[in-house]
Amino acid sequence: MIRLLMIGDVVGRLGRRAVKENLPGLVRDEQIDLVIANGENAAGGNGITREVALELFAAGVEVITMGNHVWNKKEIINYIDRENRVIRPANYPPGAPGAGFGRFQTRKGVIVGVVNLSGRVFMPDMDCPFRCADAILEAFKGKSSVILLDFHAEATSEKAAMAYYLDGRISAVCGTHTHVQTADERILEKGTAFITDVGMTGPQDSVIGVKKELVIEKFLTQMPRKFEVASGLYQFNAVVIDVDQESGRALNIKRIQNYE
Amino acid sequence: MIRLLMIGDVVGRLGRRAVKENLPGLVRDEQIDLVIANGENAAGGNGITREVALELFAAGVEVITMGNHVWNKKEIINYIDRENRVIRPANYPPGAPGAGFGRFQTRKGVIVGVVNLSGRVFMPDMDCPFRCADAILEAFKGKSSVILLDFHAEATSEKAAMAYYLDGRISAVCGTHTHVQTADERILEKGTAFITDVGMTGPQDSVIGVKKELVIEKFLTQMPRKFEVASGLYQFNAVVIDVDQESGRALNIKRIQNYE
Amino acid sequence: MIRLLMIGDVVGRLGRRAVKENLPGLVRDEQIDLVIANGENAAGGNGITREVALELFAAGVEVITMGNHVWNKKEIINYIDRENRVIRPANYPPGAPGAGFGRFQTRKGVIVGVVNLSGRVFMPDMDCPFRCADAILEAFKGKSSVILLDFHAEATSEKAAMAYYLDGRISAVCGTHTHVQTADERILEKGTAFITDVGMTGPQDSVIGVKKELVIEKFLTQMPRKFEVASGLYQFNAVVIDVDQESGRALNIKRIQNYE
Amino acid sequence: MIRLLMIGDVVGRLGRRAVKENLPGLVRDEQIDLVIANGENAAGGNGITREVALELFAAGVEVITMGNHVWNKKEIINYIDRENRVIRPANYPPGAPGAGFGRFQTRKGVIVGVVNLSGRVFMPDMDCPFRCADAILEAFKGKSSVILLDFHAEATSEKAAMAYYLDGRISAVCGTHTHVQTADERILEKGTAFITDVGMTGPQDSVIGVKKELVIEKFLTQMPRKFEVASGLYQFNAVVIDVDQESGRALNIKRIQNYE
Ligand SMILES: [Fe+2]
Ligand SMILES: [Fe+2]
Ligand SMILES: [Fe+2]
Ligand SMILES: [Fe+2]
Ligand SMILES: [Fe+2]
Ligand SMILES: [Fe+2]
Ligand SMILES: [Fe+2]
Ligand SMILES: [Fe+2]
Repeated sequence: MIRLLMIGDVVGRLGRRAVKENLPGLVRDEQIDLVIANGENAAGGNGITREVALELFAAGVEVITMGNHVWNKKEIINYIDRENRVIRPANYPPGAPGAGFGRFQTRKGVIVGVVNLSGRVFMPDMDCPFRCADAILEAFKGKSSVILLDFHAEATSEKAAMAYYLDGRISAVCGTHTHVQTADERILEKGTAFITDVGMTGPQDSVIGVKKELVIEKFLTQMPRKFEVASGLYQFNAVVIDVDQESGRALNIKRIQNYE
Repeated sequence: MIRLLMIGDVVGRLGRRAVKENLPGLVRDEQIDLVIANGENAAGGNGITREVALELFAAGVEVITMGNHVWNKKEIINYIDRENRVIRPANYPPGAPGAGFGRFQTRKGVIVGVVNLSGRVFMPDMDCPFRCADAILEAFKGKSSVILLDFHAEATSEKAAMAYYLDGRISAVCGTHTHVQTADERILEKGTAFITDVGMTGPQDSVIGVKKELVIEKFLTQMPRKFEVASGLYQFNAVVIDVDQESGRALNIKRIQNYE
Repeated sequence: MIRLLMIGDVVGRLGRRAVKENLPGLVRDEQIDLVIANGENAAGGNGITREVALELFAAGVEVITMGNHVWNKKEIINYIDRENRVIRPANYPPGAPGAGFGRFQTRKGVIVGVVNLSGRVFMPDMDCPFRCADAILEAFKGKSSVILLDFHAEATSEKAAMAYYLDGRISAVCGTHTHVQTADERILEKGTAFITDVGMTGPQDSVIGVKKELVIEKFLTQMPRKFEVASGLYQFNAVVIDVDQESGRALNIKRIQNYE
Repeated sequence: MIRLLMIGDVVGRLGRRAVKENLPGLVRDEQIDLVIANGENAAGGNGITREVALELFAAGVEVITMGNHVWNKKEIINYIDRENRVIRPANYPPGAPGAGFGRFQTRKGVIVGVVNLSGRVFMPDMDCPFRCADAILEAFKGKSSVILLDFHAEATSEKAAMAYYLDGRISAVCGTHTHVQTADERILEKGTAFITDVGMTGPQDSVIGVKKELVIEKFLTQMPRKFEVASGLYQFNAVVIDVDQESGRALNIKRIQNYE
């Protein structure tokens, strides 16, 4: 059995502190074999930089997945091609910088495939994530039976459709992007672990990470507001997934919510 | 103290059966004072009819809220004006059939205000739900201190913004529409209970209530598919909210997930 | 030189009558070599049927292109595979019924390539129309130098971007879908004829073909309204494009607006 | 009779030069009584500043209307309250800076009402433009019979619905925002002049004003691109509308396209 930890969108400095303060204990107590975190909001709430990625790696994160904010900090465009531990949605058009999936070795020497895809409903015009998933699973054949997908998407219907579509072909489908953890974690019929959204690791008292006054004002006035990451106490959102490393089938999925 | 039960979107016959089989026991065991259910998908997954509404009332539901599917069954247009226990989003333009809020008396004689609003992000062009909420709270002044809002919306940011906007002015903000229960129920600083989404009461093994094969095919082909409510076993999603009836402040919020 | 006629979205019976009454004279007077019409709204304003397609062919249309309404009449799904004169957006996922482009012979024996693509901005989640265009132009190489694209799209930016992207590689990019003819027809620098939208062939006194009272009511009430094609007098919208058949370069583009 | 000139979205320096070089001759030759220009892209393609507004006024523009880009340059927020010749969409929430309509006196002393509204289809969540129009027309009663609306909107259906909705109650409905002039200018049955889009005054060889390579790259890569206004030659797009100043009915509408 192999145990994966998937951390929901890490937002800003507070989110990074949450990772640093929670990860060591969690990895030790839960005996985590591989740590994956969504880092699309890790740098000031918007995108990621080399420095921030290294900070997360130093804290124990081993793979960083991204999302619609992947290109917000420009330096990522050069950095991502030299850092195979940071992956971006695989369904960007061919030729996009970086890679959309990778194989990563756990402490115990097990190879785990990690995939990142973006949804399309209420989101940018990406390539079809369903066909893209098919192609990646084909590429993983014979190379890795344990595979986790971070499906970064807005609509619950698209996320559930993806999970059922891949059921029995992948170990886990973890939704990200809405920054709110859902309470629907389960193992589907053919052995795929699924949760609609892992949630957010960042400011507790906020509107999905942002200072709440700014978001409220935006909705009230319909005028542009520069968003800032909220301060205060943090929350740490993640899921722990147990996978049978021979079959790739998920055995268990457990939600985690730690509060400062 | 008064105890409210808010049931997440009831989908089709299976959802109605879930209500019938779960409600009596819940009301008795939890000593619920008022039962509210979102019924926008109660009739075959799409809208509501008089017959279906009466079936829910007979099962113990006391107030039915709606959402973007409110007008899907045409007969509602005439029915809703004669049935004040069914409310639709209050931020439809003035002159829309039915009402967007109402006052309802519990068994113990307490008056509870129930409000229904629709979000606008990724949704139809309604009037501003924030200003509409202000106006309704003004109208409730002196008439009811216990007030619950069913905020039927897609985006987590809009839902959280509404909850913080109304914090201390309303007893509870319960999100609906995504059909997936979130794990973020909490009492905000000034006493408003909040959950991003109460979830769905309907077919377990489905994509937000719909036969999963149809939804997957839709995403794969981008061609129209007539959606059908899934069959099989049900799930029952709700929240129980305790409110101090003098101050209107929420004391507790608890998620409920029952499975057949 | 070869002369192409591209007719804007034919809407309902009135649109078909406009085609029947205008086409023979136009073909004769303007010496048209090939007649293409967008037929996505030809059957009652929504989709197309075999009968309606045959009616348009009988009236002189030689190629029918479609758009987002292509599948609205279900029978098209079987019909389109047997009728190579009806093409649908080529950027549907692989495996969709029908074809997205074809080669058609003019009276004079010249082979003309006709392509249909759908935009993605404010439209369904299709495959990338730009890369799809590249692949089709590649397939046409050596087989046809005269090629016309019906780019069925909403956003003016996406349409202009496509035209400039294909400039010098295709004879004409004719936008459709908005049902309003634009006044920007021109020959781009490298020889591609372009117009943002060819317009609509259907009821004059209407909101893009629909009874205006119904559309106004929909905007005012935000409630569903069953749309009906307007009646009254027709308009006929088209463009005439002259192409050098050796080089495939456009020589001229002229707008046509006939009114009953 | 009074003659109004409405200039389509002025884009950047090139657009301003087009205004300066075309306006004096046009006003003199066509005997224009009032000059209105959409200025939402006048400052570097995005928003407007005091300096740029004064430049347009000096060139002969008398009223500047705006659109979705109104707040892009921050200084407008203070400036707009002190400059009643710049109006922004009237259907921003109450309390927004500036005004959404105004009354302006022509050289000959006639009072003309000018209104600016934003559409909602594929656009931000504004208040209902239809009901907002009703309220403004009510406010104009007895004060001005000549009234022009700049309806800044994306969807052709919303623009046509507005024009028919106001037919006979307003002198002209001029659409803006798509940056492409439409060829459907006409006088509706009850006397309202209408055009779906007046077009753009800015760089000819561009994708709606922007350097075409940048827009194409954006569509191909789905990655962020900083847009820049294109250079080269300009185009000047406008309409001339003749109105009977007693009845407020439009007598004529004529499109203008000047090219450098
Ligand atoms: Fe995020
Ligand atoms: Fe995201
Ligand atoms: Fe629902
Ligand atoms: Fe809904
Ligand atoms: Fe159409
Ligand atoms: Fe269309
Ligand atoms: Fe503009
Ligand atoms: Fe605009």
